[in-house]
Amino acid sequence: MAIRPLNPNTFANSPLDRAGHVRHDEAALAALRSNDNARVAVLRDGRPLVAPRAPTDAAQIAWLKAGQTEKLAHSVEIFLGLDGDVPLFAREATHLMDPREGGPLAGLGEFHELRSLLPFLPAGDAAILAQARALLDWHARHGFCAKCGNASVVSQAGYRRDCPACKAEHFPRTDPVVIMVGTCGDEALLGRGAQWPQHRFSALAGFLEPGETIEEAVARELEEEAGVRAVSVRYLFSQPWPFPSNLMIACLAEVADKTLKVDSDELAEARWFKKSELPQVLNGTHPDKFLGPPPFAVAHQLIKAWCET
Amino acid sequence: MAIRPLNPNTFANSPLDRAGHVRHDEAALAALRSNDNARVAVLRDGRPLVAPRAPTDAAQIAWLKAGQTEKLAHSVEIFLGLDGDVPLFAREATHLMDPREGGPLAGLGEFHELRSLLPFLPAGDAAILAQARALLDWHARHGFCAKCGNASVVSQAGYRRDCPACKAEHFPRTDPVVIMVGTCGDEALLGRGAQWPQHRFSALAGFLEPGETIEEAVARELEEEAGVRAVSVRYLFSQPWPFPSNLMIACLAEVADKTLKVDSDELAEARWFKKSELPQVLNGTHPDKFLGPPPFAVAHQLIKAWCET
Repeated sequence: MAIRPLNPNTFANSPLDRAGHVRHDEAALAALRSNDNARVAVLRDGRPLVAPRAPTDAAQIAWLKAGQTEKLAHSVEIFLGLDGDVPLFAREATHLMDPREGGPLAGLGEFHELRSLLPFLPAGDAAILAQARALLDWHARHGFCAKCGNASVVSQAGYRRDCPACKAEHFPRTDPVVIMVGTCGDEALLGRGAQWPQHRFSALAGFLEPGETIEEAVARELEEEAGVRAVSVRYLFSQPWPFPSNLMIACLAEVADKTLKVDSDELAEARWFKKSELPQVLNGTHPDKFLGPPPFAVAHQLIKAWCET
Repeated sequence: MAIRPLNPNTFANSPLDRAGHVRHDEAALAALRSNDNARVAVLRDGRPLVAPRAPTDAAQIAWLKAGQTEKLAHSVEIFLGLDGDVPLFAREATHLMDPREGGPLAGLGEFHELRSLLPFLPAGDAAILAQARALLDWHARHGFCAKCGNASVVSQAGYRRDCPACKAEHFPRTDPVVIMVGTCGDEALLGRGAQWPQHRFSALAGFLEPGETIEEAVARELEEEAGVRAVSVRYLFSQPWPFPSNLMIACLAEVADKTLKVDSDELAEARWFKKSELPQVLNGTHPDKFLGPPPFAVAHQLIKAWCET
């Protein structure tokens, strides 16, 4: 049954039951792993193995069977959850040959950058890969205990790392990011990043800091980057963003005074857009060539949702 | 100017301008540090120095002047921000004597557990201490680079740790937690934790996982802990929770079927409460002795807000 309000964002709406109770039950986990239906998604430095890729652009996760993953026995393994009665896992394949050059994955698929695949993946596959990529990336960058410096080991089916030396337990991190469209009547504030092309604009955004509420972080970012003061903040929806592991928290923020004071370290430019012109910015038909964020970005859905209010 | 909707939660509504641009400007930071108005809050293993404590229960941060913090020169320092034109810092004082036993802090205040102080602190002090405690705790538990295992060093006025060996940059972590009241008509679902006293109930909660939206995490927790299925989720407000560094994301979740299937590993009990009886649960006057969460917990404010809808 779908949760309302329906989430329009890429990476949302995972089809999986994460079945978290299995993570600390080694016997249940082993049974799922050796289940004939079990399948394994493989990622290499964050890039998923997908098939078929050529000659058509359509892509889907290349789910491997147990016999196809023997060379991965010592790589990090994540239990993703259950898709109906199909147990799904993910594995890191950094040490394997590129399948285009041979090796155990030859003929099974191709590794591609996840972002570039998004227009071609089923929604469910994108959500599953968000989970897999965020977790595998966390392991890749957290091989050592931050508390004592010793090497840590994977536990809990990939959802924890334990330090054998100081016994510290480390959990995957997810960094909350606030992303907001400032509004004033029928105008919306968008910014152009310091290194972006001349006509590209999007919502402002930044990491939430320790000790802040979501709304305080939104107000701070608007003030820091554009010099405007939020008088009300409204949460709209969220998006998992696995580059590497953010939670995008999308808000609308009403601003009382439109006067801008742009921080040139953060933004090349900030600008108020009329509600009536934003659909053209989003679909790339604006007469002044303004371009918005792509549909897989939460900023696109946030601007679109505001236009429809 | 206050942000609407007003946030009723302890630790929200910080009075400070974080002045983040100063963090990467060593000269500006040094000028603020040596400013006559500058003040320093001191924490020892997460417990803030407050004054006066006895004979009255009222407490406030014991703000130290530069001359009083000489013994802290080598401890971790956080730039908290500006309170008007007053630059505020926080320092870790683990290595100093307890002021009750003498030493450089004698007569300046007492260290107390932050949670126990909450009923007695001004709201602004609580918000400042949430920021200080979360950041100092992060440093205390992240002295080593998780990527290579070498010792890392404080940078960016306390908002980053850098690894001199592998050059990795590490940022403070804030863990998003979803906390929710399941509702069905005029009834609300609360749970009793496995180790809690017999009549104590509160909202269900859990960490958001990589690859989840806020709403998916809410639905998962309700299903895992109480066996109920959310059909709609509505975000209400958030709270910084510095034990050690969570972002509490409070939601209401409408449930279609009230039938409970409680996970006994997580909960001793779950129970539906009538909207009409919850005010008594919150203020401790319920005839069946049910007790709710304390006012400083976001769960209290969440239940209260639902009762007022």
